Amino acid sequence: MTQADWIAVDWGSSHLRVWAMQGSEVLAHAASDQGMMRLAQAEFEPALLALCADWLRPGRVTQVIACGMVGSRQGWVEAPYRATPCSAQAMPLAQAPTVDPRLELWIVPGLKQASPADVMRGEETQVAGFLAQHPGWDGVICLPGTHSKWVHVSAGEVVSFQTFLTGELFALLCQHSILRHSLSGWDEAGFTEGLELSLDRPERLTARLFGLRAEALLLDLAPAHARARLSGLLIGAELAAAKPYWLGQRVAILGESGLARSYAAALDRLSVPVAAHDVTLATLAGLAAARTRMKDQTCAR
Amino acid sequence: MTQADWIAVDWGSSHLRVWAMQGSEVLAHAASDQGMMRLAQAEFEPALLALCADWLRPGRVTQVIACGMVGSRQGWVEAPYRATPCSAQAMPLAQAPTVDPRLELWIVPGLKQASPADVMRGEETQVAGFLAQHPGWDGVICLPGTHSKWVHVSAGEVVSFQTFLTGELFALLCQHSILRHSLSGWDEAGFTEGLELSLDRPERLTARLFGLRAEALLLDLAPAHARARLSGLLIGAELAAAKPYWLGQRVAILGESGLARSYAAALDRLSVPVAAHDVTLATLAGLAAARTRMKDQTCAR
Repeated sequence: MTQADWIAVDWGSSHLRVWAMQGSEVLAHAASDQGMMRLAQAEFEPALLALCADWLRPGRVTQVIACGMVGSRQGWVEAPYRATPCSAQAMPLAQAPTVDPRLELWIVPGLKQASPADVMRGEETQVAGFLAQHPGWDGVICLPGTHSKWVHVSAGEVVSFQTFLTGELFALLCQHSILRHSLSGWDEAGFTEGLELSLDRPERLTARLFGLRAEALLLDLAPAHARARLSGLLIGAELAAAKPYWLGQRVAILGESGLARSYAAALDRLSVPVAAHDVTLATLAGLAAARTRMKDQTCAR
Repeated sequence: MTQADWIAVDWGSSHLRVWAMQGSEVLAHAASDQGMMRLAQAEFEPALLALCADWLRPGRVTQVIACGMVGSRQGWVEAPYRATPCSAQAMPLAQAPTVDPRLELWIVPGLKQASPADVMRGEETQVAGFLAQHPGWDGVICLPGTHSKWVHVSAGEVVSFQTFLTGELFALLCQHSILRHSLSGWDEAGFTEGLELSLDRPERLTARLFGLRAEALLLDLAPAHARARLSGLLIGAELAAAKPYWLGQRVAILGESGLARSYAAALDRLSVPVAAHDVTLATLAGLAAARTRMKDQTCAR
């Protein structure tokens, strides 16, 4: 029977992931689809306990460190944004009220940027974790995903960041658009083609989207080629716009492996020095670092 | 009681519009949501009769001239695309099988372009109608809509055209994206702002989309401003990409009035000579011209 020293939680809009931890070691893992968007304020604690009640010891308080949308205004409790430029290390955490006496729950604050206006919740923990894993690292961290982020890091600070709607656009077009019947599977050549088209003429994106439909009708464009080209078109447009972030920089990618490979391949074509890293390990390292800081925070008051 | 000389039909993916005609005069009009996407092959004739049965005379055959997605492979009967460059005037029409002996139904073929691959169904009739209304007109016709089109017309021919997914992207983002709660109403200043941002840096589109969300969270961006800015961002990106079409040309806009006004305002900022025209009148003129040609076609065989 697993008994956690502490519990790490990544709680996004559409997912909940928990890890039973002993120091920096993972003892057990669980996940559900009880993301922030599905839950009313009173439903957060039951959703958490449904996954990790077995890891708690009777008569003992277990610390839970969470990051992500759980700290938004619509979350369990709001953990106000920290404003960039700021230290990559989270401080202070926000404590969420709990009913179960075995829980002590802390939420990592997100980051906000005044101009251009931008926000993140969750990625700041991955950035902090990556820096904890790579002390002294300077450069740009790319976090592909539904809302992909580019984060400029220098001397342990988040200098600036920029979010792109790339992943959400891909999902919307695959699920709801006129293109949806023409997209399925993956053909790497299609990805490369889309990437080059967008890097060459990024402003032609919305014309090229309809082109996928027209080629399906007129030229029997294969659905696997079409879906991969769509991804290439969108990522290419993102890279064209993110040029101030990657030009002359080294880039670390933190993301789900398939998507991270696509971004790495794209940056490689642009001769950008790039390395992909495990995003889950970065999340856990970031939550562990936040926990250490939280201890200091608690002791200092 | 209306008795039609002939019946004009505009039958798109999501709508059906019919007019009882006497020569070029409209006697009556009806519409429903029985678009092509909702109908199986055998349901087209009942959907049409539901709107226009009262206009038919017993013992007399009434010609029905239709354009739009009704002529696609998933429509009533396929009217094969004509390939550009080609005359703007439709020929030959495709006859659809009918059960009711009072109906004689003809469908206008769409247009296809080999490279870059592109297709249209319905807009070719609006273009032909506009040219029938303006004999000898040369220039570019812009047809805003779900899939907006730019059509280069010279000496009565469609030389080339280009479709953009602009309107569909706007609808997807308003209805299904994370932005959906931040968008409602219309503020002209927001449209102008979005337009200028995209004309200046069209490749930054997907970053600016997330910016709408961030400004709503951090700066209480008004939903009316956000929705109009989204429209401006998308139309601005389309105009940036359509530059080869409008640069040094005169442009005629055929579209629903509010959207046509937005495109006209945008082109005006770019100092492009532009005039907006009634798209329904163009559709009816195009269907009337197709009917005349169909008569010639029928007599010639």
